[in-house]
Amino acid sequence: MPQLSDENTFMKRAIELARHGMNNNFGGPFGAVVVNNGKIVGEGYNEVTSRKDPTAHAEVIAIRNACKELGTFDLSGCVIFCSCEPCPMCLGAIYWARIDIIYYSANRQNAAKGGFDDEFIFAEFGTSPQQRKVKCFQLIPDQGTTLFTEWIHKPDRTSY
Amino acid sequence: MPQLSDENTFMKRAIELARHGMNNNFGGPFGAVVVNNGKIVGEGYNEVTSRKDPTAHAEVIAIRNACKELGTFDLSGCVIFCSCEPCPMCLGAIYWARIDIIYYSANRQNAAKGGFDDEFIFAEFGTSPQQRKVKCFQLIPDQGTTLFTEWIHKPDRTSY
Repeated sequence: MPQLSDENTFMKRAIELARHGMNNNFGGPFGAVVVNNGKIVGEGYNEVTSRKDPTAHAEVIAIRNACKELGTFDLSGCVIFCSCEPCPMCLGAIYWARIDIIYYSANRQNAAKGGFDDEFIFAEFGTSPQQRKVKCFQLIPDQGTTLFTEWIHKPDRTSY
Repeated sequence: MPQLSDENTFMKRAIELARHGMNNNFGGPFGAVVVNNGKIVGEGYNEVTSRKDPTAHAEVIAIRNACKELGTFDLSGCVIFCSCEPCPMCLGAIYWARIDIIYYSANRQNAAKGGFDDEFIFAEFGTSPQQRKVKCFQLIPDQGTTLFTEWIHKPDRTSY
């Protein structure tokens, strides 16, 4: 495990990446680094506006780069340093990547004051699907459900 | 707005993509299409295991492709058809993309029975950060918060 001084060093790197992305007009002021065994294995900064990709958040990019570096979709044993508390999309990505620990600097309230929707989206997650701004409807449920039966009976499936 | 019969047609296409991805070992049995003005503008299927990318979910890929097609990071006015209820990561991506309506076929309980963590991750979102499996710690908060002050005062920023 990294020592406290290492943790602050990694966080400062995430903040440096955030500032670099912002100052070069790649996107919003967000940066992230993924660390494995005390070594940075993936970095990212927000590139939403420059790439025209709403999913190009710093954490998503850092996770992708770490997976490429380590040759796996499973980052168990890794930790992530984020210049801001991860938004729901990035928190979900962190769970799917099986990252162990999140360190963050600014929080979702700070992001909201900067004009970002993190806090609003977290609040939406806390309501029932019927109450949410984005409406959600189920269609032909049997046909989608069948896929999981096919999946379970697929002999050469790779689980994740 | 598409008619009900169109909606079922789009959903069947999402399910077809899911089956295609599964049968070709690209990833799990998930597909999605983004529709704008009654026309498909982005498609995707799960490619987590083949791309070694835990963020390569069908919805994320469909959103990226739609943004590429339309040349924007803002999919306001679009709807998304998903073979399964979007996981928290994808739901977050849908919010950031400003998609208006979600249609889904199978639900998170069906996904859980297929061996996927959607329901577990949704449950984690419903607990406080202190109770979650992935631990979360704040470090040097002032240094990250400063980024948002710099952002607000940046004259040429592109908001999103």
